[in-house]
Amino acid sequence: MFSYFDHNATTPIGEKVLQSMLPYFKDEYGNASSRHALGTKAREAINRAREQVAHLVEVQASQVIFVSGGTEANNAFIKGMGACLPPSQVISSSMEHPCVKNPVQKLRRSGWKITNLPTLGNGLVDASSLDVLLSNKTGFASVMLANNETGVIQPISNLAESFRQNNVWFHTDAVQAVGKIPVTFAGLGVHAMSISAHKLGGPKGIGALVIDKRLPLEPLIDGGGHEFGLRSGTENVPAIVGFGTACEIASEKLNSYQTVVSPIRDKIEADLESLGAVIFGKSAPRLPNTLYCSFPGVHGESMVIALNEEGFGVASGSACSSASVNVSPTLLAMGVEESIASCAVRISVGDESTADDAERFYLSCRRVMKKFNNLIALAS
Amino acid sequence: MFSYFDHNATTPIGEKVLQSMLPYFKDEYGNASSRHALGTKAREAINRAREQVAHLVEVQASQVIFVSGGTEANNAFIKGMGACLPPSQVISSSMEHPCVKNPVQKLRRSGWKITNLPTLGNGLVDASSLDVLLSNKTGFASVMLANNETGVIQPISNLAESFRQNNVWFHTDAVQAVGKIPVTFAGLGVHAMSISAHKLGGPKGIGALVIDKRLPLEPLIDGGGHEFGLRSGTENVPAIVGFGTACEIASEKLNSYQTVVSPIRDKIEADLESLGAVIFGKSAPRLPNTLYCSFPGVHGESMVIALNEEGFGVASGSACSSASVNVSPTLLAMGVEESIASCAVRISVGDESTADDAERFYLSCRRVMKKFNNLIALAS
Repeated sequence: MFSYFDHNATTPIGEKVLQSMLPYFKDEYGNASSRHALGTKAREAINRAREQVAHLVEVQASQVIFVSGGTEANNAFIKGMGACLPPSQVISSSMEHPCVKNPVQKLRRSGWKITNLPTLGNGLVDASSLDVLLSNKTGFASVMLANNETGVIQPISNLAESFRQNNVWFHTDAVQAVGKIPVTFAGLGVHAMSISAHKLGGPKGIGALVIDKRLPLEPLIDGGGHEFGLRSGTENVPAIVGFGTACEIASEKLNSYQTVVSPIRDKIEADLESLGAVIFGKSAPRLPNTLYCSFPGVHGESMVIALNEEGFGVASGSACSSASVNVSPTLLAMGVEESIASCAVRISVGDESTADDAERFYLSCRRVMKKFNNLIALAS
Repeated sequence: MFSYFDHNATTPIGEKVLQSMLPYFKDEYGNASSRHALGTKAREAINRAREQVAHLVEVQASQVIFVSGGTEANNAFIKGMGACLPPSQVISSSMEHPCVKNPVQKLRRSGWKITNLPTLGNGLVDASSLDVLLSNKTGFASVMLANNETGVIQPISNLAESFRQNNVWFHTDAVQAVGKIPVTFAGLGVHAMSISAHKLGGPKGIGALVIDKRLPLEPLIDGGGHEFGLRSGTENVPAIVGFGTACEIASEKLNSYQTVVSPIRDKIEADLESLGAVIFGKSAPRLPNTLYCSFPGVHGESMVIALNEEGFGVASGSACSSASVNVSPTLLAMGVEESIASCAVRISVGDESTADDAERFYLSCRRVMKKFNNLIALAS
């Protein structure tokens, strides 16, 4: 038995999602650009899915640009804006995912000035300097909606107000938030938003950049002119269909999702605190499924490996960068000491997680911590 | 009953391919970057698939960079080189797919000079001027291996020799060729090659840029540093696994594929010629499954629609651009008159196509042509 507490890395695909995809692998395998019956069926399936994705975040279907995932969506926005606008200031945060941070950094080469909003100790961006920063000509901004590690939810609609007053195009990486908390495009007040299917019960390899159609955007991937000319390439029909289904399910169960995951996360949090864990971002609004903590003295990687042996899948830092063992820049930005930050473990539950999983997790953590504490005692 | 003769647009996915993918949707759904058991299984699956893709084109696994498809692979090469090299000349052809042609055209903005090799009447590139062209400093070149419309196979290894002598990085869009004819990276002599899974029995949404590791390449999509730092984003594990399986099957059946599809294509070709069709590229080496022709006086789109009603899926021009009805630039480059080019129809069979399909196709074409000829006679 393996209990999966790593839903911020990727989610299990829903059975209904997979079933909706299968016909487009097996029988309706046409290229949506083909003019025969199989092409038409593929096109109709894409149109339906676009409506489903649009419905979840309350936009028009034509605002949904299908891309290969969240990383591409973020690159498409940042590089697309960088190629369209004359270089000026770009505003971001120190807590962005590498697929925002790295493209933003590369804009320096073409003359952009990068300004990152500082981070408060609780994991929220510190927007107090924003009005001063905006006195410099600013082309665009990108601040994440929910942090992949801490789960802290940023005050995007407040930021959007300042950006709009200053005619700054504003994007949010909403990959971790959509499907976990209510998110609407208009509610956030942004001009662009990235979504990833596999973070909300859909398949890997598909996502969307949702845009205000007035956005000036140079396509990242050129070719046959698919996706309103903004993203070329044969449409990944089964994945698009699965993404649509996942969004429909996410729409339906948004309230029940929070009701299920919150108590499980809260129980785990209380349990781990009783075992000596330091919780990050606790005083800020957070995703209901996410818990980020350190057991001081026990390296995060060691904890992940020990808990894997106990039958639990958790992460140290974000899964996307755990291929390279780095201390979390998010925690450092929050002012966490490096020795504590290097012990960070992320637990992200899902709505198939149970109270029983949580109880077994507590017992495992207690057992593991006992071992580590014995080792620490021996070494000192 | 619907007979699918549009395999150059996309292929049906093999049953064995789909079966190989399903476990990675259902049970082994981990993020390959995760350090727990589910992550490890995903990573191992990607490693196996990378070996399978590498084996098909005879390269080391580390030369295979997974991307979202052929369009991204071509963009990644062209834009990646354009960002790395100082602007000079780029050499391409007039017959490239829009996902090569458009990114190449955009290089003009950053000071590149675009030179397209002329096209011979049979659909081959005319390389007679290449040595003269190469007297101008040339950064890189991209010429397709097999044309998506005519199926004409270009003399890539000959071109590669000239490019190598002049220290020009050389890429080929091999999307239409791999799986249909024997293709090896070393045999072609290129430095980079694009492959798409869904053109060879694999799933949509996955492909590869196969590279000489010395190639200087700025990543198109930045982030967590996946794919040797050249293509970030959570790996699309099921699609990668399916791509691997499709490549393994393609390796095994390469000879039988040609033995099956050639006679069917040849029969259809002879039948259509007997009905008055003009065949394009007939005197050049071609893909064994592809037939490109015009029935003068009958618009290609009309033919596609009429044949769809008869239960056949064919294309007019390339499926990728048939969303916009344009006369094929490839045919115009070959010197075909616009009135003839606008009548172009592409028939691309697959190894599940049968002699019986071909015979019924002949009868349908005869019926359709009779109707059109009656209409033409009435109108004149």
